[in-house]
Amino acid sequence: MSLIVQKFGGTSVAGPDRIKHVAKRIVATRRAGHQVVVVVSAPGDMTDELIGMARQIADPVPARELDVLLSTGEQVSIALLAMAILAEGAEAISLTGAQAQIKTEHVHTRARIVAVNRSRIDRELAAGRIVIVAGFQGITDDEEITTLGRGGSDTTAVALASALGADLCQIYTDVEGVFSADPRLVPEARRLQEISYDELLEMASSGALVVQTRAAEMAMQHRVRLEVRSSFVDREGTVVTDSAFERQKLVTGVTHDTNVAKITVTGVGDRPGTAHTLFRAVAGRQVNVNLIIQSVPRTERADISFTVAKADMLAAVEAARSVAAAIGAEEILADDQVAMVSIVGAGMISNPGVAARMFGALAAQKINIQLIATSEIKVSCVIPAGDVTAAVRALHKEFVLDRT
Amino acid sequence: MSLIVQKFGGTSVAGPDRIKHVAKRIVATRRAGHQVVVVVSAPGDMTDELIGMARQIADPVPARELDVLLSTGEQVSIALLAMAILAEGAEAISLTGAQAQIKTEHVHTRARIVAVNRSRIDRELAAGRIVIVAGFQGITDDEEITTLGRGGSDTTAVALASALGADLCQIYTDVEGVFSADPRLVPEARRLQEISYDELLEMASSGALVVQTRAAEMAMQHRVRLEVRSSFVDREGTVVTDSAFERQKLVTGVTHDTNVAKITVTGVGDRPGTAHTLFRAVAGRQVNVNLIIQSVPRTERADISFTVAKADMLAAVEAARSVAAAIGAEEILADDQVAMVSIVGAGMISNPGVAARMFGALAAQKINIQLIATSEIKVSCVIPAGDVTAAVRALHKEFVLDRT
Repeated sequence: MSLIVQKFGGTSVAGPDRIKHVAKRIVATRRAGHQVVVVVSAPGDMTDELIGMARQIADPVPARELDVLLSTGEQVSIALLAMAILAEGAEAISLTGAQAQIKTEHVHTRARIVAVNRSRIDRELAAGRIVIVAGFQGITDDEEITTLGRGGSDTTAVALASALGADLCQIYTDVEGVFSADPRLVPEARRLQEISYDELLEMASSGALVVQTRAAEMAMQHRVRLEVRSSFVDREGTVVTDSAFERQKLVTGVTHDTNVAKITVTGVGDRPGTAHTLFRAVAGRQVNVNLIIQSVPRTERADISFTVAKADMLAAVEAARSVAAAIGAEEILADDQVAMVSIVGAGMISNPGVAARMFGALAAQKINIQLIATSEIKVSCVIPAGDVTAAVRALHKEFVLDRT
Repeated sequence: MSLIVQKFGGTSVAGPDRIKHVAKRIVATRRAGHQVVVVVSAPGDMTDELIGMARQIADPVPARELDVLLSTGEQVSIALLAMAILAEGAEAISLTGAQAQIKTEHVHTRARIVAVNRSRIDRELAAGRIVIVAGFQGITDDEEITTLGRGGSDTTAVALASALGADLCQIYTDVEGVFSADPRLVPEARRLQEISYDELLEMASSGALVVQTRAAEMAMQHRVRLEVRSSFVDREGTVVTDSAFERQKLVTGVTHDTNVAKITVTGVGDRPGTAHTLFRAVAGRQVNVNLIIQSVPRTERADISFTVAKADMLAAVEAARSVAAAIGAEEILADDQVAMVSIVGAGMISNPGVAARMFGALAAQKINIQLIATSEIKVSCVIPAGDVTAAVRALHKEFVLDRT
C-alpha cells in the first residue's frame, strides 16, 4: 500500500459537478488500495472575489485580516470535497491548515512552511480515511492564520508529500502534463513523459505554469516524486524524475512568457554598488525581477536591463528614477510590448552550440533579439511581443521536439 | 473604563456600506473610552447559500463537514469588519471561534459552549485593540470546528459577556428593541424601555425573535446585563433588568408566531408512558415541540395536541404514526393554518384574572381558541392563522399597552 498526495486546483472544484467528478477519481485511487491525502485550492475565482470584497472596504488591505479572509476559500473546498467523497461511500475528513498542523513563519500573504506536524494526518489515515487538506494556508505557533501566496496549494502538496514520505505527489491541473511547447501555439507539441527537476524548475520559471516555481524548487530539494496530470482526462501525465540518464535530446521544451515588461537604465556609472543600489530600490517596492543583463561598459558607462511582470512596470520605473541620480543614469526606458521565449533542456549543459542554433532559428524568422540570458540548462531571449508565436514554432521545429 | 460586548447580526454586515457603518459605531464606542469585544454573524444570506451548495453535493449533508463549511461565513465577516475598523484608524483584530477559544462540546451543528478561555482576548484588549470574534462557532478540545445552531451568534455574545465579566452585552438587530407587540401589526405598539429576563425569555420563545431563546436563557442564568437595540438607528433600545419592581402593568407585551403547525393525536390510551412513547418518537426525528396539551380523559381515552414549526409538521406526523399502534391512537390530525398569540408579563403571576380577560378579548373578535397553554408569566392561545392580526390588536388594546 503506497501513500499518494493528490493536489487539485481551483478549476477542478469550481461547481458541484466538478467536485463530484474529482471525488470519484480520489475514491478510485483509494479503492485501488492506496492511502490518499488530497490538497485542494479555493473554488474557481473565489479568491479573487474575496480580494474584491476586501478592496471595497480597505485600501491598502491589511495583510493579517486578508489571510483570515482568503483562507475561507480553501475551507469551503475541503468541506464540499469531503462531503462528495462521503457521498461516494468512502471515509473522508477535511482538515484546515491549522488542523493539519501546516506550521508557517509569522508572515502574512506569503508565509513559508517551516514544519508539518504529521500526527493528526497519520491518525486519520490509520482510521482508513481519505484526508482532505486545505492548500495555500497555514498556522503560526501562536495560532495566527497565514497564507502562502500565489500557487501556495502546490507548495502545500509538496510539503505534505515530503513530511509524510509519500510515494508520489500528483499535481492535477487543467493541462495533461508538461508539453514540449504550449499546444495552443504549436499544434504538434508533445506531452513529455518525464523531465528532470531542473528542467521543471526552469520551465516553471520561464512561463510554463504547470507547477508553481516554489513547489518545483521544494520538490527538487526534498526529492519528492512528482507527476503533473489532467484533472479532467484520466491519462498518464508527466513524471518528474530525479535525473535523466542517456538523454536523447539537447532541448526538452520551449516555453514562452508574454507577461513581461523590459526596463533599461542607460549610461550608469560603472563602479561597485551600482547594481546593488538599483535593485535594492526595485525590491523595496516588492517587485520581482526576472532577467538582469548588464552590457559591457563603454567609456565607464554601462546599460542595465531587466524584466519584470507587466503589472510591476511602473513601480520598477519609479524605483529606478528614485536612484537615477545616485547611480548616474542617463535614461530610463520601459517597454511592455515584449515577450520572453526560452529553450530548456538538461542536455544542453555539455553542448555549447545550442544557444547559437536558437539565435539562428530566430534570425531566420527575422525576429529581433533584444536581450539574452542563459543558465546551465536554459537560454532565454526577450523579443517583440508580436513575434512570440513564430518564435516558439520555429524553435520547436529547430530542435525537432515533435518527435520522440 | 467599562467592557462592552456588541453583537451584530448578518443584516448588519451585508455589503461594504453596512460593514463600514457598523465599524464607525464600534469605533465610536471605543473612542468613548470603553473596551469593546464584537461578535458578528455571517454576512446576509451567506449561510443559506453555503447550505445550498452543500445540498447540491450530498444529501443528507454530513454534520461535521457542514460545520467546517458554515464556519467560513463568520470568518469572512470578522476579517472584513476588522479591515473596516482598521481603515477608521482604530486598532482591531479578528479572532475565529478557535482563536478566541470558544470551547464547545463535541457535537456538530448544535454544540453547546462549555467554556471560554479568555487569555487571548484579554491579551488583545490589553494591547488596546477592538476584538472581533466570529459568532456561531467554536472548537472542541481536539480541535474540531463546531457550530452552535440557529441564532448561535447571540449565544456567543452572551457567553463572552459572561466569561469576560462584561458590564453590558448589546444585541444590535434590525428592530429598535423589544416592543409591546409587532409594530407591523400594531401601529401603536411601544418600545419597552426595560423588561425582565423572564419576560424576555417568554417573549423570545413565543415569537418575538429579537434575541435567540438560548441566549436569553444563558443571560438569565449568568445575570448578563443585556440591551437590545437597532444597528441602523442610534437610539436607546430595551434593557433587560434583573427584576422589575413596582411594575405598573399586568401584561408587558403581546407576541405572535405564525410558524406553527398543530398535531392532534386522538383517543390515546390513558395510561403511564403514553406521552413518553409519543414524544420520544418525535424527538428521535430532531423535531422540537413547543406547546403540549393533553385533554382531560373521557372513558380512559385522551387527546394529545402539540405544536411544532411548520417545516417539521410532516416529520412529526410520521413520528406519531410510527407509534400509533403502541399508544392506541385513533386518529392523527395535522393543521398548519394556525398561529399562536401570547401575552407575557411578570405582573400576571399574582393576578389570576388575566387569562380570562385574554379569552374575552379574543371572543369579542369572534376568534376561536383551539388550544390554550399557560406558564407563570405567559398565556398562549393557538388560533386560526387568518385571525392573528385581529387577535394581536385586540390584546394590545385590552391590556392598554399603547400607554406607559
